[in-house]
Amino acid sequence: MTERKRLSEHELATTLTSLNGWSIVHGKLHKEFKFNDFIEAFGFMSSVALIAERMNHHPDWSNVYNKVVIDLMTHDLGGISMLDVEFAGRVDRLLL
Amino acid sequence: MTERKRLSEHELATTLTSLNGWSIVHGKLHKEFKFNDFIEAFGFMSSVALIAERMNHHPDWSNVYNKVVIDLMTHDLGGISMLDVEFAGRVDRLLL
Repeated sequence: MTERKRLSEHELATTLTSLNGWSIVHGKLHKEFKFNDFIEAFGFMSSVALIAERMNHHPDWSNVYNKVVIDLMTHDLGGISMLDVEFAGRVDRLLL
Repeated sequence: MTERKRLSEHELATTLTSLNGWSIVHGKLHKEFKFNDFIEAFGFMSSVALIAERMNHHPDWSNVYNKVVIDLMTHDLGGISMLDVEFAGRVDRLLL
């Protein structure tokens, strides 16, 4: 499976261009989301939780009121893999 | 309203004894929860989200797989109030 390979820096740089607003922070694929209020923020989180469980791949994430921060990495590879990129893409598509 | 007053250190120390496993970390009422898996952790978070919206009081919180960390403070008072203590108590009662 391609997904299980840790991406090189070059691969990462290329892949980032296919995503919307994600960057690399502390070795993780990182994005901050802002909503109108907590109801919208937690509604979003509920959708992301279903994606996470479906993919059996779980984010490091936090929330304060209308803000949600998501950090993705593939822990058993110690880095970012295509699984994280796929996850990020699915999250972005929630907000289209 | 009693809830809108920032608690003194003495009041806090007394109040903590009424809660289960909460401590003060970086000026916030803090507790870490561990579940069997993400499904249980996010189920818990969904319940906490409803409490938050019902009380119109929202936690700083984060999750990684089966772990949930909750930090409570009353932002507009710049400290911990009875609102946070009430919130913590309701969260504890979810797990009885």
